[in-house]
Amino acid sequence: MVNNMFSDFPDGAVSREAETFEALLTQPGVRIERIISTGQSSTPDFWYCQPQNEWVMVIQGSAALRLENEAGERVLKAGDFVNIPAFCKHRVEWTDTTEKTIWLAVHYG
Amino acid sequence: MVNNMFSDFPDGAVSREAETFEALLTQPGVRIERIISTGQSSTPDFWYCQPQNEWVMVIQGSAALRLENEAGERVLKAGDFVNIPAFCKHRVEWTDTTEKTIWLAVHYG
Repeated sequence: MVNNMFSDFPDGAVSREAETFEALLTQPGVRIERIISTGQSSTPDFWYCQPQNEWVMVIQGSAALRLENEAGERVLKAGDFVNIPAFCKHRVEWTDTTEKTIWLAVHYG
Repeated sequence: MVNNMFSDFPDGAVSREAETFEALLTQPGVRIERIISTGQSSTPDFWYCQPQNEWVMVIQGSAALRLENEAGERVLKAGDFVNIPAFCKHRVEWTDTTEKTIWLAVHYG
């Protein structure tokens, strides 16, 4: 059996309220996750702050990521990846409203 | 700065002899690698056998992977992923000869 990054998407229109988080691999020290965004962004003044490092890539769609220690946002399109160290505060400024944005996140350490 | 999975490809035609292995992230316990194949396959009777686990996804192109404990090969297209446990012998039966095959490999544990 082969699993596919693009298959088994939850049904629902692009205006669906919540993002989807789905574990693809959970092992000691590493967790690989698929995230599907449909236009969501972090609420104002909300910052993610995680005890694990996170390497993240946009597979489809587009998004803007903001890291606390950077002046501007990083606009990410398909293939773009960023390493976010543990405890580096970050937020999602926007995600594509015209198509699903698929993220691959590798949490480690 | 944003790095992109599809950028900075080595020059050369699809008939280039060797595969390209490039580390995208190297941290204790995890190594994320991009592999670019251009029609290569494992030589007859060669099997990879690695002390680390490997989670691998085809991002572009196509390939066939063979795991020692499985009867047939797994044909992988864009988005398909497989987890290969440590010491599970495996080989690449073929990779696409008409376009570059881009793999994302996460070595862990």
